[in-house]
Amino acid sequence: MSQSVAQHRTAPPAVNGGRLLRRVEKLGNIGRDAATGGITREGFSPADREARAYVVEEARAAGLAVSVDAAGNIIVRARPAGTTAERPALLMGSHLDTVVGGGRLDGAYGVLAALEVVQACAESGGHGRYEPMAVAFTNEEGALFPQPFFGSSVLVGRLSDLPREPLDHEGRSLRGPLAQAGGDLDALGSAVWLPESVAAYLEIHVEQGPVLERTGNRIGVVDGITGRTVLTVEIRGTAGHAGTTPMTGRRDALAAAARAVTVVEHLAGTRDLCRVATVGRLDIHPNSPNTIADTVRLTADLRDTVVARMHAAESALCEELREVARQTGTEIEVVARTHSGPVSTSPELRALIEENCLELGVPYRSLPSGAGHDAQVVADITPVAMIFVPSIGGVSHVPLEDTAPADLVVGAEVLLRTALKAAHIPTR
Amino acid sequence: MSQSVAQHRTAPPAVNGGRLLRRVEKLGNIGRDAATGGITREGFSPADREARAYVVEEARAAGLAVSVDAAGNIIVRARPAGTTAERPALLMGSHLDTVVGGGRLDGAYGVLAALEVVQACAESGGHGRYEPMAVAFTNEEGALFPQPFFGSSVLVGRLSDLPREPLDHEGRSLRGPLAQAGGDLDALGSAVWLPESVAAYLEIHVEQGPVLERTGNRIGVVDGITGRTVLTVEIRGTAGHAGTTPMTGRRDALAAAARAVTVVEHLAGTRDLCRVATVGRLDIHPNSPNTIADTVRLTADLRDTVVARMHAAESALCEELREVARQTGTEIEVVARTHSGPVSTSPELRALIEENCLELGVPYRSLPSGAGHDAQVVADITPVAMIFVPSIGGVSHVPLEDTAPADLVVGAEVLLRTALKAAHIPTR
Repeated sequence: MSQSVAQHRTAPPAVNGGRLLRRVEKLGNIGRDAATGGITREGFSPADREARAYVVEEARAAGLAVSVDAAGNIIVRARPAGTTAERPALLMGSHLDTVVGGGRLDGAYGVLAALEVVQACAESGGHGRYEPMAVAFTNEEGALFPQPFFGSSVLVGRLSDLPREPLDHEGRSLRGPLAQAGGDLDALGSAVWLPESVAAYLEIHVEQGPVLERTGNRIGVVDGITGRTVLTVEIRGTAGHAGTTPMTGRRDALAAAARAVTVVEHLAGTRDLCRVATVGRLDIHPNSPNTIADTVRLTADLRDTVVARMHAAESALCEELREVARQTGTEIEVVARTHSGPVSTSPELRALIEENCLELGVPYRSLPSGAGHDAQVVADITPVAMIFVPSIGGVSHVPLEDTAPADLVVGAEVLLRTALKAAHIPTR
Repeated sequence: MSQSVAQHRTAPPAVNGGRLLRRVEKLGNIGRDAATGGITREGFSPADREARAYVVEEARAAGLAVSVDAAGNIIVRARPAGTTAERPALLMGSHLDTVVGGGRLDGAYGVLAALEVVQACAESGGHGRYEPMAVAFTNEEGALFPQPFFGSSVLVGRLSDLPREPLDHEGRSLRGPLAQAGGDLDALGSAVWLPESVAAYLEIHVEQGPVLERTGNRIGVVDGITGRTVLTVEIRGTAGHAGTTPMTGRRDALAAAARAVTVVEHLAGTRDLCRVATVGRLDIHPNSPNTIADTVRLTADLRDTVVARMHAAESALCEELREVARQTGTEIEVVARTHSGPVSTSPELRALIEENCLELGVPYRSLPSGAGHDAQVVADITPVAMIFVPSIGGVSHVPLEDTAPADLVVGAEVLLRTALKAAHIPTR
């Protein structure tokens, strides 16, 4: 399907593919490492702020209304025309932050496609039962501040009463960085949405896996989102000189961490207690070749689509960690835990997506999401759905992450049609 | 023994204990973390430069001659009086750089005690067969630039023909930092000493272990220095999303590194192939909780006093690493290797040290050095000896590293007397 830009207010809304791809291109230059091509826009970092500023400028230049809530979430809608009554939102979006050395599409594509849909609707001027809105949620990845899904969690009211200030991996408070992003740590309650204020949430995203490519489909209709438990584990031993401290009596925090990493790997590998289990980050002190480490922090990331399996894997990990502590003479403590349960998507919204794929003649299939997404959080307050486009080579969170431009445009078209139908906006 | 400062040129040289302890105190404030008390003066870091400047200023204020060679080594001697013929050096010293979060005495005490001896000799004016000189060798620890014993290695001619520019852990060249320290990477050959230019090398150091304290001795006479092999191992896998990449087919560099750390630990632990084996540092990329690591570099530090055991341990490690690579689908390569063989100290110098302990009524014992020291490198060109003073609690490379002030002064007195006798300087 290929349509030109709607030029007058009576034409049906249509995706401007060239505009979308140009924005994907430009946003993909922010935080980009020239040598590797990897994108590093950790949530609340300077590069993340630059990406946010870009989206705000594009939306304002398009004549849209932009607001930033206390969680730093950017919300874009058409400018209110006169005394229009408030309608529930048809919310669409994703996030702008990335992992370290990630790709240009994860999150960013979902925000820009949502912006394109809101802009197309505004240009067309159609008025339905629900109001299309685009959102860029803050800190979905949690790369710098280990509070993933921060923005969406605030929006649904999970974080309105913080027990303590969120800290980054170096112990710095989120307060300043959040204020720099236009938010306010003391006013998170003001960013909470009531369920009646939103009719549905749609998120379009790259698959980040190989299924669509391998099966020759261009659209994935997500039937469920995997649950994820992230444990921050602190291992405390005793520092000492690597040459003069005998092996017997050592309390080597890094040697203990090595065993813990292997334990985590086996949870999903040989033991098959959960689908995947990963340690991707260690913070080692003092991290000097000549000194036995006294402290190591590691993050254990466990995922499955079945709640009972996630609990079993977590219990097994904690039991094994006690054994590692005993064997190595170290103290091991779980100092932080985030958990998001598996989430089902709305059958009604899935049916709409499939209907649009059929109308457009685009091959699609159902599949689960192996990665976590803001949609699973927003599901607390409203029906959600996710649309996937193929990941070339099945890779994500790496510089090579990519999707064919034609697939990016088709995805946005499916999103637009689904939004129009869900919002009861006339499509002629 | 307690003596006042020599006030005129005919008195025998004597240690000024108060001056020595004041300098230890002042130098120990450079690079000190106020919260932990730990000292961080990685070789060629700003804090290291500050420590070097302090020693140069103290030596110049004492009327001594200071020079810095192409390796950045600081050499202190009495100002030449008239047309004195060149005599071989009686060299004493150690290093000023530290590990991350180390103590204030490791290295620093040896430099300051040597400075005290040279200053005492200059004040006294005695003239022997050999010329007392103090040296502060650069980058003994290799905490920032992984070329430990850099300064002493240049001095003995091990590094006059560098195959490539030395790099730090982030890949930055040593060229600039060395120039900032007064050295010159292109002129290292000019810093090489011929064997005939030096009669002996004496190094006084904290024990860094518990033996002297446990046995109630105040001086350790080192009979041999442990050998050390440091391998920098690079593990290369494939990055991927922690949630969407199935366990089968992963090439997880951190999971492989965890196995490698355990292999290293077992070399000296359960397998007893060498005395100690340690991994103290991992550099992980991208080190993000949500991404499978694609690259990990680790340093494996193996030590023993028997050459054959060191070789056996290294061979076993390389064999095990091949097995880890096979099991994890990663590539594992030893990208750098430094090796220093075990070294014996000079029996004649040891006898002099023991004689001085007996004369001073100070209890002493022989012991090996578990840590590496510049002395083992300088042994390439001249007889060496080492004097140890007790480490409180046996700890080193940690903020709590300490020695009783009286032991620091007694150690310097033993060093002075040994230097005088070795240099054939009259003690009256």
